[in-house]
Amino acid sequence: MAIVTVLGAGMMGTALCTPLADAGHEVRLVGTHLDAAIVAALQAERRHPKLGLELPAAVTPYALEALPAALAGADFVGVGVSSAGVRWAAETLGPHLRPGTPILAVTKGLDESPPGSLRVLPEVFHEALPAALQPTIAPAAIGGPCIAGEIARRVPTAVVFAGRDRGALARLAAACATPYYHVRISTDVVGVEVCAALKNAYAMAVGIGAGLHERGGGPAGPVAHHNWEAAVFAQACLEMDRLVRALGGDPAQVPHLAGAGDLIVTTSGGRSSRLGRLLGLGLSMAEARSRMPGDTLESADTVAVVGAALPRLAARGRLPAGALPLMEHLYDVIVRGRPIAMPFDRFFRDAG
Amino acid sequence: MAIVTVLGAGMMGTALCTPLADAGHEVRLVGTHLDAAIVAALQAERRHPKLGLELPAAVTPYALEALPAALAGADFVGVGVSSAGVRWAAETLGPHLRPGTPILAVTKGLDESPPGSLRVLPEVFHEALPAALQPTIAPAAIGGPCIAGEIARRVPTAVVFAGRDRGALARLAAACATPYYHVRISTDVVGVEVCAALKNAYAMAVGIGAGLHERGGGPAGPVAHHNWEAAVFAQACLEMDRLVRALGGDPAQVPHLAGAGDLIVTTSGGRSSRLGRLLGLGLSMAEARSRMPGDTLESADTVAVVGAALPRLAARGRLPAGALPLMEHLYDVIVRGRPIAMPFDRFFRDAG
Repeated sequence: MAIVTVLGAGMMGTALCTPLADAGHEVRLVGTHLDAAIVAALQAERRHPKLGLELPAAVTPYALEALPAALAGADFVGVGVSSAGVRWAAETLGPHLRPGTPILAVTKGLDESPPGSLRVLPEVFHEALPAALQPTIAPAAIGGPCIAGEIARRVPTAVVFAGRDRGALARLAAACATPYYHVRISTDVVGVEVCAALKNAYAMAVGIGAGLHERGGGPAGPVAHHNWEAAVFAQACLEMDRLVRALGGDPAQVPHLAGAGDLIVTTSGGRSSRLGRLLGLGLSMAEARSRMPGDTLESADTVAVVGAALPRLAARGRLPAGALPLMEHLYDVIVRGRPIAMPFDRFFRDAG
Repeated sequence: MAIVTVLGAGMMGTALCTPLADAGHEVRLVGTHLDAAIVAALQAERRHPKLGLELPAAVTPYALEALPAALAGADFVGVGVSSAGVRWAAETLGPHLRPGTPILAVTKGLDESPPGSLRVLPEVFHEALPAALQPTIAPAAIGGPCIAGEIARRVPTAVVFAGRDRGALARLAAACATPYYHVRISTDVVGVEVCAALKNAYAMAVGIGAGLHERGGGPAGPVAHHNWEAAVFAQACLEMDRLVRALGGDPAQVPHLAGAGDLIVTTSGGRSSRLGRLLGLGLSMAEARSRMPGDTLESADTVAVVGAALPRLAARGRLPAGALPLMEHLYDVIVRGRPIAMPFDRFFRDAG
C-alpha cells in the first residue's frame, strides 16, 4: 500500500482515484482553486457533483490550502488539472515534493514554445518544477481510452503510461493496475502525448458529421453521415501519424490505445463531439461557443495552438506545408470563422 | 461515358450504381439467382426493396438470364456478390468477358487455400476465371467506409481502389469519382483486402460492449462501455497490423481508409454490431444466430476462417503463436461456444 496524492478534483482526477483506491492505496484528492465547490461537496457528503458518484472509502478530499499536509509522505502524485493549469500545478506542487517523487499526469495538450516547436505537457510541467528537482523527476502521462465516468464506474479499459524511465513506469503500472484498469507502458512520451492532445480536435471534426446529417433533415440511425465520419476519422489518423513523426514520436502509437483508441472513445460523446455537431449544423464558432457556456473547449484550444504552429513548423522544415489539410480546415473554421467545407480532395494525398 | 455492368443487386452492388450513374455512365445492374425478387421489383417499379430508394435513371436492371446481353460492350465490370459467391461470379462472368476487361469488386473476405495461407478474394476470383483470361485480368477491389445506404444517398465518403496495375487503377478511379465519392488508389491489394475482410469480425467484437453494458442494466449514453469498446478497437487495429504484415501487405493501411476507417463505420450499426450485442447480452452463438434469421453473418464467417487458420499460420512460421488473442477469443466464442471473457491481460503485448 502506498500513499497517493492527486491534484485536481475534476472528473478525470477524481475518476483516477477509483482504480488507485481499488489497488489498495491511501488516496488524497486535492482540489484546485477551481474545485472549491466540489471539495466542499465531497467533504460534506462524499458525493462528486459532476460524476454523480460517491468517493471510494480510501479517498480523502482536501482543499488546496491543505496541499502540504496532503503531500506529506506521498509515494507518488497524480496530476488531474486542465491543460491551462499545468505550469501552475508544477509550481504549486514543486515546493512540497520530495526529490524523485513519481508524477503521473492525465492532462492533455500541446504548447508552442518556442515558436515553431510543439511540446507535450509533461515537458512543460517538468520545466516549471523548481530547478533543483528537475534532474530527479520525469513526469509520466496516461494515454488511451479514459472516459472519466466509466473509469469511476469500473468499466474495463486499457491505458498506456508513458514516461522516460521504463523501470519507473513498470512500478507505477504495477501500483495502479486493477482487474478492470489494464495498464501498458511506453517510453514514447511524444508519440503518446501528441496523439492524446490531437484527439479532442479530431473528435470534434468527426462530430461535424452528425450536425451535417441533422441539418440535412436526416434521422439518427445506421444510415446517416457515418461514411463521412469514418473518412474524416481515417484522415485524422493520417495527420496524427504525420505530426507524431514530425515531433519525434513513434507512429506505432496511432493505431493503438493513445491514437485510434482514445480518438474513437472521444467521438462517442462529450464536449468535443457537441462542438462539432453545432458547427455541422451551420453555427459559427462564436455562436457554438455561446451555446456551451462554461465549458472548456480543449478541441478548439488544440486547433488554435496546432493550426497556428503549422506554418512555423513548415518554415523550419519540420513538416511539409499542407501535410495536415484537415487541421488547417479546422483552424479556418474555429479561428478564422470560415464555413465548413471539408477539403476531401486534399485528403489521403502524399504529404508535401 | 462508358458502359458499366455490375453483377449483384444486393445493397452494396446496387449502391455502387449511384456514383457510377452520377459519373455519367450507362449502368447495367444484373441480379444473381439470389436477387430474383429484387430484380423483379426493380423492373416493375425501379425501387430497391432493401435500400428503399429508386434507381438512378441511367441504371437498367437485368435478370441473371440476361447476363450476356448486359455484358455486351461493357467497358468495365463491378462485382457485388457475397463472399461465398466469388468463385461463382468469376465462373459466370468469365465466358462473356473480353480479355483485359477491368474488374472492380466490393466483395470482402479471406479464404484459406491451401491450408496455412489466407488469400484475399481478388486472388480467388482471378483463379476462378477461365485460364485464357487470367493473364489479361487483375481484379481491383474497393476498401474504405462504404455503408451502402449512404453511398446510394450520396453522403460524401472516401474509398480506396486496390489493384496491381497503378495505371489501370488511376483510370478506374477517374471513371468512378464524383463530388461525393472520393477515390484514392493503392497497389497494396493484400493490405487493403485483409483490413476489409477483418473489419466485420472486429466490429462484432466492439459491438459486444453494448451488450455487456445493457446486460449490466446501464442506460445507453455517453457513459456506457465506450472505454471497453475503444480498447477492443485498438487491439483490433494491432491485430490487423500483425495479420497484414504476416500476409505480405503494408501495415500503413491500418490507420487509414480500409483499416480504422472501415472498422469504425462498421461499428456504427449493421449485422456485425448486432451479433456482437447479442453475444454481449450473454446469448450463445447458436442463440444469437437464431435471433438473426436469414442474415448472412460475415463477421462469424471471417472468425471461423481466420481463427481456424491461425494455428496453421503459426506452424508455418507466418505469424507467432498467440499474436492475435482477440481473434482467438472470438473463435472460442463463435465456433467453440465458449462464454465471453475478453482476455485484456493478453492485449497490447509484444507478439510471440
